[in-house]
Amino acid sequence: MPKLLILSREQDEYTKHIRQADLPNLNIVTEHSECEIVLGEPRIIREHLAQLSNVKWIQSIYAGVEALMDPSLRRDYILTNARGVFGELMSEYVFGYMLAHEKRIFERFKAQQAKKWDRSESGLLRGKTLGLLGVGSIGAHLAGTAKHFGMPVMGFTRASEDCMVVDRYYHEPDILKFANNLDYLVSVLPRTKDTNKIVNMDLLDALPPHAIFINVGRGNAVDEPALVEALEQGKIAGAVLDVTEKEPLPEDHPFWTTPNLLLTFHTSAISYPEDITKLFSENYHLYIEGKPLKYQVDFERGY
Amino acid sequence: MPKLLILSREQDEYTKHIRQADLPNLNIVTEHSECEIVLGEPRIIREHLAQLSNVKWIQSIYAGVEALMDPSLRRDYILTNARGVFGELMSEYVFGYMLAHEKRIFERFKAQQAKKWDRSESGLLRGKTLGLLGVGSIGAHLAGTAKHFGMPVMGFTRASEDCMVVDRYYHEPDILKFANNLDYLVSVLPRTKDTNKIVNMDLLDALPPHAIFINVGRGNAVDEPALVEALEQGKIAGAVLDVTEKEPLPEDHPFWTTPNLLLTFHTSAISYPEDITKLFSENYHLYIEGKPLKYQVDFERGY
Repeated sequence: MPKLLILSREQDEYTKHIRQADLPNLNIVTEHSECEIVLGEPRIIREHLAQLSNVKWIQSIYAGVEALMDPSLRRDYILTNARGVFGELMSEYVFGYMLAHEKRIFERFKAQQAKKWDRSESGLLRGKTLGLLGVGSIGAHLAGTAKHFGMPVMGFTRASEDCMVVDRYYHEPDILKFANNLDYLVSVLPRTKDTNKIVNMDLLDALPPHAIFINVGRGNAVDEPALVEALEQGKIAGAVLDVTEKEPLPEDHPFWTTPNLLLTFHTSAISYPEDITKLFSENYHLYIEGKPLKYQVDFERGY
Repeated sequence: MPKLLILSREQDEYTKHIRQADLPNLNIVTEHSECEIVLGEPRIIREHLAQLSNVKWIQSIYAGVEALMDPSLRRDYILTNARGVFGELMSEYVFGYMLAHEKRIFERFKAQQAKKWDRSESGLLRGKTLGLLGVGSIGAHLAGTAKHFGMPVMGFTRASEDCMVVDRYYHEPDILKFANNLDYLVSVLPRTKDTNKIVNMDLLDALPPHAIFINVGRGNAVDEPALVEALEQGKIAGAVLDVTEKEPLPEDHPFWTTPNLLLTFHTSAISYPEDITKLFSENYHLYIEGKPLKYQVDFERGY
């Protein structure tokens, strides 16, 4: 009888969904020392890690697991994160903002308020080039949606070229070549030691002045003062940030009022207990059959 | 040597594209009485119709051809309109506004202006139901995009059930049943005698209070005072109108300030000369081979 401990702010919701999933032999417990499986939020799990003396497998309900990556923490368990479930959510967000830009949604609303019949031409996503910083399962989903809208897609990755609908891959040291002809640059990078400030002044300078930068990955990927400067000087046309280095954003941070910068307060994709329970159930079946789990995190790589 | 007359405000642009297409034996002329083919805007063609003594085929660069439907006008020629080219443009517009609604793009911007870290939950298109009033080539394209985003699609048509990705079709007299469970109602109806005021108080009453109505068809489909009342009384949650009965909208029209109503000034899809030239070229080849033309308008039906 495998014993599961749920460590989440949505404990009741998860308990309900896991019970409904009716997983064979699974026992939901509240005693830390007893459990061999933990499901929950990395930051909460981190606080309890020392007491989880029998834990063998931890399933994060988030994609980001940086709270458990600190080298001082134990790594004597299998860590799996949430993947595959955020692609369609991120796609709604990213394409919502790209289309809002092309269709001039804010400008049209201003025209309406001024009672002005504004027949100025809208833009088209069709034919515009999307550049993806990171092409994991989220990036691959974004690439698929881009294809639906007729967009060429460039991918910048460490090495992998798994997603077949990406038209062209770039790797280090070609990041500036990658940036040169993009209309949209979207970062889906996780927080690791290798992703710090990838979006720096050199990269922002390499983007065309009409380009829009969207960050749905992690805030550490952005050199924040460089982004402020790029927007103030019109080096790029706009930015949409779902994530920032510090969250909530400090009240005196320049991002609140940087021109052409939109903030969305880390709301682009949330973990829906239905989705996560489905993913957990799939992994639970592999677990009890002694098979390798899906979505395992590499502690060295950090994702 | 077939002779083509171009009657468009973008005459130079079209002349350039048609010349580049290098169509066999085609001669571009400026003399009205000589031409047997006309390419252009219905409203301009209408003014010249009496002088086109030898015209056999008129290709409209727009989808809407109501200017040529007046029963007092001659119908002794083949009229083809522009189809197939607007689906992807309309899709960008419709999904741009639907995603803007779900992602609360205006509300997030207000929160940013108030320096408020607004973590309120965004909505999802996934699982929301789209209802299409009219399922021609534009409706079919919208249905395809809806499927990409995981939305069930209901279609209301006169009779046709051609688009296979529509989950369920409704026909008269079931329009209120059709409306009952929709999250989004999108009209792509052309202006005909049968489409007048289809979106009336009964239909608006049948929609759920959280529903959004989007009109990318023609303004005549809407009972405008009923829509104002429905929005003022919260019978539906919002409306996005690209078209209105009178365009430009009169300065004293209530739509300018109706709550939760967005105007976009007939900008959702424009005719790109590249697209229209492609479509014209295709039909021109059929024409010189004596084959039936594509996209023929039925004068009785009105589209």
